[in-house]
Amino acid sequence: MTTSKKVAIGVDVGGTNTAIGVVDKDGNVMIKDNIATATHGDFAKFIADLSDAIKQLIKSAKMINEDIEIVGIGIGAPNGNYYNGTIEYAPNLSFRGVLHFVELLKSHFPEVPAIALTNDANAAAIGEMIYGGARGMKNFVMYTLGTGVGSGVVVNGDLVYGHDGFAGECGHTTLIPGGRLCGCGSLGHLEAYCSAPGMKRTAFELMVQYNAVDSMLANKSFLELDSKMIYDAAKAGDKVANMVFEKTGQWLGQGLADTVHHLSPEAIFLFGGPTAAGDLIFRPTKESMETHLLPIFKNKIKILPSQLKPGDAAIVGASALAWKEIEK
Amino acid sequence: MTTSKKVAIGVDVGGTNTAIGVVDKDGNVMIKDNIATATHGDFAKFIADLSDAIKQLIKSAKMINEDIEIVGIGIGAPNGNYYNGTIEYAPNLSFRGVLHFVELLKSHFPEVPAIALTNDANAAAIGEMIYGGARGMKNFVMYTLGTGVGSGVVVNGDLVYGHDGFAGECGHTTLIPGGRLCGCGSLGHLEAYCSAPGMKRTAFELMVQYNAVDSMLANKSFLELDSKMIYDAAKAGDKVANMVFEKTGQWLGQGLADTVHHLSPEAIFLFGGPTAAGDLIFRPTKESMETHLLPIFKNKIKILPSQLKPGDAAIVGASALAWKEIEK
Repeated sequence: MTTSKKVAIGVDVGGTNTAIGVVDKDGNVMIKDNIATATHGDFAKFIADLSDAIKQLIKSAKMINEDIEIVGIGIGAPNGNYYNGTIEYAPNLSFRGVLHFVELLKSHFPEVPAIALTNDANAAAIGEMIYGGARGMKNFVMYTLGTGVGSGVVVNGDLVYGHDGFAGECGHTTLIPGGRLCGCGSLGHLEAYCSAPGMKRTAFELMVQYNAVDSMLANKSFLELDSKMIYDAAKAGDKVANMVFEKTGQWLGQGLADTVHHLSPEAIFLFGGPTAAGDLIFRPTKESMETHLLPIFKNKIKILPSQLKPGDAAIVGASALAWKEIEK
Repeated sequence: MTTSKKVAIGVDVGGTNTAIGVVDKDGNVMIKDNIATATHGDFAKFIADLSDAIKQLIKSAKMINEDIEIVGIGIGAPNGNYYNGTIEYAPNLSFRGVLHFVELLKSHFPEVPAIALTNDANAAAIGEMIYGGARGMKNFVMYTLGTGVGSGVVVNGDLVYGHDGFAGECGHTTLIPGGRLCGCGSLGHLEAYCSAPGMKRTAFELMVQYNAVDSMLANKSFLELDSKMIYDAAKAGDKVANMVFEKTGQWLGQGLADTVHHLSPEAIFLFGGPTAAGDLIFRPTKESMETHLLPIFKNKIKILPSQLKPGDAAIVGASALAWKEIEK
């Protein structure tokens, strides 16, 4: 015999695929699936197909435990606006303009108590707060390092959405005035230095600077080189690769210090591929942050690895938004 | 016949003097006074004298309106910690270490319902929210430009104190890595560029760069030159002086954009001497902020002059903290 169990649906909208999962209160993914995002030209059709996939997934979950109860659906999406439930002008999606995601999805799930949407990094921050290393923390910030750099800010136990729903874009603070071109079109943003592609750019900058033809990275093209190769080379003792982590940490630490001076969080969590390098990235980041801090903040703010499982983090983070909603 | 009237006491602790005022709910100062801070070597003695001065001021206020009721005492002080009611290691005060300000003051005023302390810029932000241009705003940030650059952050209608009580030190975010020495000992902080002394440094930097012996500022020593002289010269058409405002605005706009990327406020308020220059400083600041913003934030965030009266702002801001306390 099965027992009744509350679960939330997490939806992670990506440019190519949209992942869906049924997640329990402890952050365990019971079952998951995904559908194509990119091939849907029509947004209403996409939402209809997504709804069908969610209903199918719930049916399958009920085969595992017939007494599950859906408390809500949480969605993480690029440029997701929590206040309006919309996705607004997301550069990486094929749909254009302002998409009324929550409103449309609600028409397919009138019986579900809570449906809410935010951007992916905000969802990750809520995931960390509900399931991860930030449980019990009232003030923390999450940085997600990947193709871009996202962030989510938590103050007094609540995610900060700002006046328009878009707060927490710390990846677009200026590190180096007039510096590298960022994906957003501005110059010198943190994302252009501390994302995975930013690390690739740093590797080439260093090879140029030192004419490092003997680096293990010297036989890779600009298109080919990725942050995993830099990590492997660093572990094997390559000087350039080690300097990439050193410089990335210096830049990231400068950015984290700016965040501390705004918010004085208890901890800053780092999430994403580059954080797998552990001390290689955490040590220089911490050192640089401390150097940039006012005395009153020194040796007080923790820099911690996210406790979310990399593979499921996006779904799990999104589902946490549903749990957070029903807490209210 | 007089009518009953609720008032708050505002206390502004400065390195030289401490100002005290009786302030009504509309932010009007009924009566004010001040005592020396610097000459008190002993902190308990200072608090005793401050308490006497407050009691005397209340007595005088009662001569104007015998039915006033004291709702609380709000204190603005450098390195003031809201959570503990302490001043911690303030570099500009003659008292050392951690000062238990609120605890000591409470022993002199056991009957006053609320006594609270925060730093001066946070007090100014609360003043703006209770009496000034931020009435009705839930998300805004205040920058105070003076000898230093302070800031106060408001999210969801509450001041952000962070996990330790010290949030809102935006003047110490890094603008120019490895740049000018800041008063705090770090390099390249916003305060070293956008404070009044920062503008003086910029004037000399520009005279050096352009060998501007014909500038109206060229006959002033590094010690002599102040931001008021730069303002007067700019109004009289001096090129260097005008460039100082242009550059200060560019730097400040970069910093404000970083703040927007963290918090997405409805507005950022500017307070302090340099803001008297109006468009000379507001225009380049706005232009630079917009240049540095992500598209989703462009043309949405207001930069506004503080509505607090310059002379009384510190007392009035501090008193607002008392009003905010009794709202809870």
